[in-house]
Amino acid sequence: MNPIIQSLFDRKSVRLFTKEPISVEDKNLLLDAALQAPSAGNLTLFSILDITDPILKATLAESCDHQDFIKDAPLVLVFLADLQRQYEGYCQFLTHTPIPQPQEGELLLACNDAIIAAQNLVVAAESLGLGSCYIGDILENYESVQKLLKLPPFAIPITMLVVGYPIEAQKNRRKPPRVDRHHVVYENTYRQLDADEYEVMYANQMAKNKLPFRGAKVIFEDLYGRKTSADFTKEMNRSVHEMLKAFRKSKPIL
Amino acid sequence: MNPIIQSLFDRKSVRLFTKEPISVEDKNLLLDAALQAPSAGNLTLFSILDITDPILKATLAESCDHQDFIKDAPLVLVFLADLQRQYEGYCQFLTHTPIPQPQEGELLLACNDAIIAAQNLVVAAESLGLGSCYIGDILENYESVQKLLKLPPFAIPITMLVVGYPIEAQKNRRKPPRVDRHHVVYENTYRQLDADEYEVMYANQMAKNKLPFRGAKVIFEDLYGRKTSADFTKEMNRSVHEMLKAFRKSKPIL
Repeated sequence: MNPIIQSLFDRKSVRLFTKEPISVEDKNLLLDAALQAPSAGNLTLFSILDITDPILKATLAESCDHQDFIKDAPLVLVFLADLQRQYEGYCQFLTHTPIPQPQEGELLLACNDAIIAAQNLVVAAESLGLGSCYIGDILENYESVQKLLKLPPFAIPITMLVVGYPIEAQKNRRKPPRVDRHHVVYENTYRQLDADEYEVMYANQMAKNKLPFRGAKVIFEDLYGRKTSADFTKEMNRSVHEMLKAFRKSKPIL
Repeated sequence: MNPIIQSLFDRKSVRLFTKEPISVEDKNLLLDAALQAPSAGNLTLFSILDITDPILKATLAESCDHQDFIKDAPLVLVFLADLQRQYEGYCQFLTHTPIPQPQEGELLLACNDAIIAAQNLVVAAESLGLGSCYIGDILENYESVQKLLKLPPFAIPITMLVVGYPIEAQKNRRKPPRVDRHHVVYENTYRQLDADEYEVMYANQMAKNKLPFRGAKVIFEDLYGRKTSADFTKEMNRSVHEMLKAFRKSKPIL
């Protein structure tokens, strides 16, 4: 395995960081690595908010499911799917036509751009000995996040990253094993799993974790309780539903 | 710059490939690198379709804006935001409750999972001398793609990758320069660009490209004509609108 692929295998999420700051040079290198990522038509349909204000960090830590470690992260970056920059450029420079507002297809394309850039940054961070963690909870509380970050209607927060030097305990933490490839990669068409395959998939994953396996039913009950029926998931679903509804209806005045 | 970050800077999209196949070992290594990517709660809310059937490849090449090179790619991978596998697991193993169907917040989280995995695969491919290109056009023609790939209601195609060994001309092609960092990275809150900044942003990008710059107005007119008002964008917006509407309304019978 070459060193680049090895680093993809080694990388695990890090949530707790030392007080050591990230140098300006390294931060700029991380951001430039994100900008070097592929982007549909090289249009850069994303923006990155570098959250340096401690009060903003603390407020985001609260709104992202009360995860205190966010406010202590040296680097907090919000990735926006951004169709606003292009839309405003059209409005400022084109004279010949009423400019159609961005729509949902372009939004998903912009989400792709933003996430691809974020993952480049994660890979670059790992290569510098920096830990990182995605905070999907930025999808929650859309209305207050939008006000807090002064987001115009066509710039949508799609993910957040926290980055810093891992504390010793985080370095030593074992990366949670993945499920085996053939349960996730299908040839040509979608393949639905039967009950036996769910059992095998989780039995193997738990074995890699050296954890006792008490059947897929126990796994799904735990998952349903901790994730699907949890308050933060309900809030995320409410928030994104409202966000998409607002996006479809926006009639921005520039 | 370390070799990993250098590889992120070097990587450019490749659309034309030699006939050389990708070995089974390398293909599996690429897929495992994708699976090693971070995934929200380690839930693996994505699946990958490995399109090996030449007829399927040709049909996808047509439905993805008639891009012939897709059918000639050694490796064609469709990345699905997949909430179906988890939903069906719940339906099979949980007895205590009617299972709520997945919603839009979970869908965006699953899209993140799928794209993060795809970008890991892109980075791994580059390290093996393999070229790759994202095909955002998989967002078009949802209804026919869904039938073609036998997708259940909660598995959504979010991106596609083509991968192979680049032909010489593609190796020698210059990577299109990115816009400068400070136009895309903002501190704390969103920052809207004024007309002067659009001019500077594009003047610098074109200078890096050694191309003549005739003003931001010309850039935006070209962009509007080639992208925003193009038929494929209209189709992408229609397709994703219908896809999201269908997702919200699905009442799958298992």
